[in-house]
Parts: sequence; C-alpha cells; structure tokens
Amino acid sequence: MNIPLTHIRFLERARLQFGRKTGIIDADSSWTYQEYAQRCRRLANLLLSWDLKPSSRVAFLSYNSYPLLEAYYGVVMAGGILLPLNIRLTASDFLFILNDCQAEFLFFHPDFAKDIEDIRPQLESVTRFVLLEAHKETDWAESLTYDQLLESQSSDLDLQILKVDEDATAELFYTSGTTDRPKGVMLTHRNLYLHALETIIAENIRETDVRLHTIPLFHVNGWGTPQSLICMGGQHVLLKSFHPKKVLQQITRHKVTTFSLVPTMAISLLNFPTLAAYDLSSVRQIMLGGSAASPQLVRQLEKAFDCHCMASYGMTETSPVLTLSLHKSQLSLTEEERYQLQSMTGYPIPGAEVRIVDAQDQELPWDGKSVGEIVVQADTVMAGYWNRPEETEQSFRGEWFHTGDMATIDPDGYVLIVDRKKDVIISGGENISSLEVEKALSSHPAILECAVIPIPDPSWGETARALVVLKNNQQASEKELRDHCRAHLASFKIPASFEFVDTLPKGGTGKILKRELRKQYRSHQEKSAG
Amino acid sequence: MNIPLTHIRFLERARLQFGRKTGIIDADSSWTYQEYAQRCRRLANLLLSWDLKPSSRVAFLSYNSYPLLEAYYGVVMAGGILLPLNIRLTASDFLFILNDCQAEFLFFHPDFAKDIEDIRPQLESVTRFVLLEAHKETDWAESLTYDQLLESQSSDLDLQILKVDEDATAELFYTSGTTDRPKGVMLTHRNLYLHALETIIAENIRETDVRLHTIPLFHVNGWGTPQSLICMGGQHVLLKSFHPKKVLQQITRHKVTTFSLVPTMAISLLNFPTLAAYDLSSVRQIMLGGSAASPQLVRQLEKAFDCHCMASYGMTETSPVLTLSLHKSQLSLTEEERYQLQSMTGYPIPGAEVRIVDAQDQELPWDGKSVGEIVVQADTVMAGYWNRPEETEQSFRGEWFHTGDMATIDPDGYVLIVDRKKDVIISGGENISSLEVEKALSSHPAILECAVIPIPDPSWGETARALVVLKNNQQASEKELRDHCRAHLASFKIPASFEFVDTLPKGGTGKILKRELRKQYRSHQEKSAG
Repeated sequence: MNIPLTHIRFLERARLQFGRKTGIIDADSSWTYQEYAQRCRRLANLLLSWDLKPSSRVAFLSYNSYPLLEAYYGVVMAGGILLPLNIRLTASDFLFILNDCQAEFLFFHPDFAKDIEDIRPQLESVTRFVLLEAHKETDWAESLTYDQLLESQSSDLDLQILKVDEDATAELFYTSGTTDRPKGVMLTHRNLYLHALETIIAENIRETDVRLHTIPLFHVNGWGTPQSLICMGGQHVLLKSFHPKKVLQQITRHKVTTFSLVPTMAISLLNFPTLAAYDLSSVRQIMLGGSAASPQLVRQLEKAFDCHCMASYGMTETSPVLTLSLHKSQLSLTEEERYQLQSMTGYPIPGAEVRIVDAQDQELPWDGKSVGEIVVQADTVMAGYWNRPEETEQSFRGEWFHTGDMATIDPDGYVLIVDRKKDVIISGGENISSLEVEKALSSHPAILECAVIPIPDPSWGETARALVVLKNNQQASEKELRDHCRAHLASFKIPASFEFVDTLPKGGTGKILKRELRKQYRSHQEKSAG
Repeated sequence: MNIPLTHIRFLERARLQFGRKTGIIDADSSWTYQEYAQRCRRLANLLLSWDLKPSSRVAFLSYNSYPLLEAYYGVVMAGGILLPLNIRLTASDFLFILNDCQAEFLFFHPDFAKDIEDIRPQLESVTRFVLLEAHKETDWAESLTYDQLLESQSSDLDLQILKVDEDATAELFYTSGTTDRPKGVMLTHRNLYLHALETIIAENIRETDVRLHTIPLFHVNGWGTPQSLICMGGQHVLLKSFHPKKVLQQITRHKVTTFSLVPTMAISLLNFPTLAAYDLSSVRQIMLGGSAASPQLVRQLEKAFDCHCMASYGMTETSPVLTLSLHKSQLSLTEEERYQLQSMTGYPIPGAEVRIVDAQDQELPWDGKSVGEIVVQADTVMAGYWNRPEETEQSFRGEWFHTGDMATIDPDGYVLIVDRKKDVIISGGENISSLEVEKALSSHPAILECAVIPIPDPSWGETARALVVLKNNQQASEKELRDHCRAHLASFKIPASFEFVDTLPKGGTGKILKRELRKQYRSHQEKSAG
C-alpha cells in the first residue's frame, strides 16, 4: 500500500492526535492544532474559491508569523506551490522571482506594501494581492485582510491524500547564486516528508518539544520545522524577528526546549548583558547552522544554556539538513575534543549519503586530508531548479547532487567543510580556505566577527583581505592580528591586507554575505583600476 | 531526486559510518559493521553465482543467528525475496509455504534436516538446500555449509541502489489465518524503509542502543530490528531462543539497553528466582507486544528493570508496528493511570492513520465506547498477499487495510483493542471479549496465564470456557475463580466452564495460540457429539 509521502499527512496527524493541544503561539495569541488545521483548511478554500489551478505559485512575503506558518499547509492542501519570499531581498529581486515562476497570488505584510506597489506595473502574473494586516493606500490589494478573508471561508475540505502526487513540487525557495540570478529550488512533497522523518530522528525531536522560531520560515521553513515539529505534535513559538532580548523572554515565558541559531545570533545572545537573569532551564538543545561555528562557541552555549549544542550542515537544495555533529559511540573523546567535534560539520543523517570528489568527479579518500567537493544522494535533494534545465543537469551530473562546498571526510565518516568552492582564495597557485583564516582570526579576543575575501592581484592572481569588526571597547592593531595569524596559520595563508569595519553585510539568517563583499571589492578594484 | 526507498541503504550507512564498530554479537563471536556488510555481500554473490533471478524466493529456516541476520540484506542485495520460515511450524506447513511461493533456495539449520528430508520429494521448486551448520546424512544438500560457501565468495558487489524498485517485494512472511491456509505477506523495500524510520522515531532508537533479539527474526524481523537498528548503527545481540536465564546473562554481559517481550516472556523473566542478582542497569526501554499486557505487568517490569516500558500493537501485514503506548503531554496522569495507559494499545506512530469502522465500513466515533474493526492507511501496510488477489482485495476494500481487530478509540486518539474479530465470543446474542475476561482472570494472584475460548452450545450458540494455568504451588478452586470474575465482570461475561491445564500452546513469540485451542475444542465437541 503506497500512501503518497506528503507532509499534509503530518497536519492530519496533529489534528487527529493532538487536536486539543496548543500547537502554535504567536505573541499573545495561540491556537490548538485543531484550530490551526481549520485555519489551514480555510486558507485552502480561499485559494480554491479564487480558482487556484494545480501547482499555481502562491507567494508569501512575511515575517515569522501565524499566516506564514498556515501557508505551509493551506497552500499545498489547495494544490498550490508555496513560494516564501525572503523579506531581506530588494523590490527588484521580488520582481524577478515573481515573474520568473509566474506567481499568481501574493500575500504580503504591509511593511512591504511600498515595494510591491513600486514593482506592480511590471508584475506579469500576479492576479491577487492580499494584505496580512490592514494598511492604508493599497486600493490595488484585496479589500479584506488575510484574517477577514479566512473568516469568510469554511473549514470543511475534502482532502484527497491518496490523490496527491508525492513527486509534485510543494515548495519553491529562491536561492541566490554568486553573481547569477536567483534560482527557484523545487522541493517535492516526498522531499519534505522524508526530510521531516530523517531530521526528527537525527535531532531527536519529541512531542514534548517547544520550539522557538529564531530562523525565518522563508529559509527552507526555518530548517524544516513546519513539517518535523507538526508531525510530532510539538509546540511552535513564533518570533517576528531575531532580537536577543525577545529570544530570552520567549524562552522563559514558554519554557522553550529547542531552537536554531547561526553563529552571529549565538554571539549576540551570549553577549547580552542580562543573560544570566533569565530562566533558561527548559532548553535542552541548540542547533547551530548557517556558517561554521567554533568549539569555543559550542562550549559557551552549552554552559550558558546548560544544554546540548550541535552544528548542522545543509542547503536549500537539500531541504536543508544533510549532516549533524552527533557523537558516535565508537569514539572516546576528551571534553575539548567533544566541543571540537560538535562545532564541526558532522556526519550524514539517515537518508543521506555524502562523498567528496575532485574536479573530474572522481571520489576522494576519507583520510581527513583530501579536499574535494561534497556531492550527495539523499531523499531530501530537490527535484531541480525551476525552469533551469541546464543548471539542474549540471548540478546532478553523474547522479550525485553537487553542493559547491569543499570538504574533507575523516576515516570515521565526519565531514569537515573547508570552504564554499567559490570562497577558496587562490593565491600564487596555493588554495587558501577563507574559512580557516576566519576561524584563526576569530579566536583573537578582541574580534567580534570577520570575513576573509579574495582581492584581485596582478602578481598573485588573488590575495586574501581580512575585514574585521572589533568588539565594543576593544582594540587591536593590524600588526597584532598579523602576529596572531602567524601563530595559527601557515604563512601563505596570512591575509595580505587587513581592514577594520563597523559592520558586515548579512543575509536573512544573519550569515555574512561574502558574495556582497566580493562584489563590492571587485568593483572597488575595477574603479581604482579604471 | 528520488533515491529508491530501500533498506539496503541502511546497511550502506552502517558500513560507511559505523564500519569499525562491533555491530553484531552472536554467542562468542562478533562482527564489525564492515565485516557484517562484507558477509552480506558474499551471500549476495553466492546467490548470484547460482543464477538467482530477480525476485526469486530464498527461504531461511533458522533460529536467531548471524546467518539469518545476514540473509536480511544478502538476499535482497542479490535481488531476491527473503522468506523467513517460522521454526515452530510443522513439516507440512513448510511444504505448503515453499510450494505456495515456489521458493528456489532453502537455507536451514540441521535441527530441521529431518523435516526437510521428509517433505523433499514433494517440494516443487527448491533447487539448492544449504545447511547452516554441518550435519551428517544429508547428501541431498550442498556439500559445503553456509560459512564455507560464503568463504568462497568475493565481498565486492556492484550495488546499484538507484536501480532498485522500491515497490518490489523484499520480504515474504507467512501468516496463519484462523482455519485458512497460511498467506504470504509481501513487504516491499519501501514498506521496510519507512517502517524503520517511523519506528526509530516512535521508539526513540539511538546509535548507543544495544538490542537483545528476544523475538525471533522470522516474526517480521523481530519487529523490524534488522532495518531500524542497522540504520542507526546500534548493536545487535542475537539469542538462539528465549530462556529467562540466558536473557538476563546477555543483558549483563553486553549492557543491553532495549528488547521486546510478549507478556508470557515478561512473566517468566519476572518470576525468575535470581532476577535480582543480575546487573540490569543498562536497560532503558522494554517494548511489550504480541498480546495484551496489564498495568501490573508494566509496573513490575519498570520496577524490576528500572526502565521505561510500553506496549505496542501491529501485525505482519503492517511491517508490523502501528501504535505505541506513548504519553501525550496534553494528558496529566497519576502513576496508576500512567501504567494503565502504557499497558494499552496506544496511538499511531508517524506514517500510520487508524480508524474504527462498523460492519458496513462506516467510520465510528472516537468516544472510547463504540467498538469497531481497526482499519489503517500506513506507509508500512504490505503490498498484498502472495498470489491471493481476492483475499488482498477483500482486506483493502475502500482503500483501507482491514486488520480484523476490534477496538475502541478514545477522544485523545488512544486505541484500545477489545479483541481479535474472531476471538469475540457471541453468547446468547451478547458479545463477550475473550480478552476482557482473560484480563479479569489474570488479576487473580494464583493464575500464571489463561485463555478464554468459545465452545459451541446448543442453547447459547457459544459459551465461554476458561483454560487456566496456575502458578507453581498455588491453588484456586473453580468457585473461587468464578467469584473473582463476578467482582470484575458483568455476569453474562463470566465463563460458563473452567478447566485447569498444565500449559497452553504457544506460537513463535510465546503468544498463546487461541486458534489451536479453538480447533482442539471444536473437534472435542464434534467427537463427543458424534
């Protein structure tokens, strides 16, 4: 008996098995799973009343809030494809994406009304604009808001789970290449179903979990939470956007057990002045992702929150989780080695197989030294890029998905990301991992954060430049940083130049946008060269 | 990217990620996962060297031992279908089954050489007979034993995971109907893959688990362990057959963390005289299945083993686990209520949806009172019965699999099995649940175990007869038992007759074979009537 693998079944499970339980909390409102499921059904009926065709794209432009969480089920139950837009993008990005996939419906928070109004004349396919909250001067949008529209709909829906095509696209996320146009990542019902089961296992998500949505849902669902946590009947606590104080308040208020952080978020929490005043005893697990963590950071988080902390690795194209830095009982580790391991990339979750290959796609040994591109075969790898058959084919060459990340694998099977393929700096024929240099720099006590990028150089091809943000009231000279690097790095890896900056550009998860920096310094260079 | 859902991937994961770890322990031998995977590959190569055709049936007739565990992967990696035979069946059963599915290869323990020799002239399809251990007087079998045959094979195998058909049958288990011929249950690669993921979640199986194989592997793999535990890289401890002393010794010796029991096994462990002398501190979880448990039994097990204990429900046709008696945080229970809940059927694991229906297949309410047949839609429901299109169609009518078990579902979603459909005794138009009467009787301190069965009766249609086994050195009169029943049951449910017996017939998992008893008493009746 093949029941289609669709995450819609998770919502049905939550409704039937945890219907009376409070499933969703958003500010001062909350909904049982029964109520949440009814609202999702109303949303589906709304879309159907507007003649949504199977696989129509329905875009949401929203902070983390209950309408967006409802969209994860309401849109797909109506047969549509959910397109969550990253709110940090520009109006011209929105325009490109909405036209690229010919989205038909757009739900948006009033904060973005101006952006949408600006691009509206050029939008080719959007027929309905729905405000998530009331807003003036938007007579081009539906006259009723999201909540009002839902109220008018029935919560009865003839769900035909057995008729769902598990290989159909359920969600479309746009991922930004380096200098390319954004590409739409097609995740199928089956991808999302299996990703949920496999991350529930790897992260040990339980029915008793209370998860704080620190990561925006538009980032591959905040790492798959709408699927995994709802399958288990756990509790969601939404958070409009990340602020250390709000995070700590919500943890205390709702006895949060688990949440995800990128390192920059973690640092801001750890540096929050009154951290020690909050009751954080409910926290059992913190997931670190987005970019490389350090053993110090893992240790500090474990001490501050008295919990288990581990790093994960993945990407939009893989739903996203591929590896987790879990222990294996075959290893016996000192405390230091344990923190080291937990800060690393880890090993594949069930359902994922990972290899490293050279430039000719030949498999490299698991010796902890050979550096190759990570390729994967996994239940969670996307169907392909929307309307990009060539890029899709290129990524899947040889039946393995190519991640573009460079790594080693050690004899115990642990992957260690060395760098994004495109972040490797090639200087005088030597490969310099920008990540390695950043890690060495970050261990200097005065440094808050840093980024190392390539600068075109006539003699060396490229040289490394370090962009450094110092902590408040801390000082460090270039010489001091250079000496610090010398103590930790081979001499050819020491940045050729240093620059002190006030901030670094960041993406939706707080990840430093090296792409932006590279672009900026390339144009600098071009200007000064021109 | 659709990677076929096949459990062969779990073995690959164990080989790659836990290759150096001791994965399998059998008596004084042990194998790392690397060694185990190599042996499985050798078995696959052996079968391929004998020109095994895709989907050929390969039968194993064996106690719990390493060759049988290897067969779970070796046979399917060669493209065959594994047919594990229940060693408690008779030679004529073996004959029926092997001919029914036209098995081509038969691997057997020498203890069954006589049985096989007896039926050999009538076997229609078996071309190779392989002894798992050396034995005299079997010149009709291969001259080399299993181990010797494996030694001659290479461990290199060109595994083509991407070419596996996930909907192909991987395992065939014969299940005995009431009076029917045994039926072959076809479990697909996809069934087994998803069953593993879903039970890992529900039972919280971890990499650190050490599982003792108390349940025969020929019973739906000892409840799916070859898949789930190998996916996680846990450790298997094999046990030829169930003896309380051996179980306790192995727990102590290998620091066993988890195992499964049927109630009769649990009772024999709890009654073992020197139980308290064993170090059982490693045990974290006991799964109870096979037949209904009592709250007293759960409490006694939890106290004796200082662990968590829960009941499960399922059947061969569902791979098998469907429900587990886990808590929901929405309930607040006293200790007594907790034991009550843990002894019950529980609620569905992820991937399974359960309903109860009346005789017309109309859904019944979840009121804790309405009794209906359990029907399921689950990832783990078999493809069908081997060569039995009519029985298959009948079981799957209305796109729900019909279990033949009668149950209630309460408003919190908890299922409670009332009885096997065929074990309900209909006396004077009243339905008597044999299970309910057995539970009431079992709470009498002098009773070790009992079975309540229908006896044909000219006035009542049927009446209930209780077959009772008393504990050693314990006494109880029929009147005393009748009074005990009166205190716990409605008067029409009190057995019409009582009989004291020394033992009750049991199946492979120690489950009482009420089918046998019914047959026996029916023929009694016919004889005395004749």
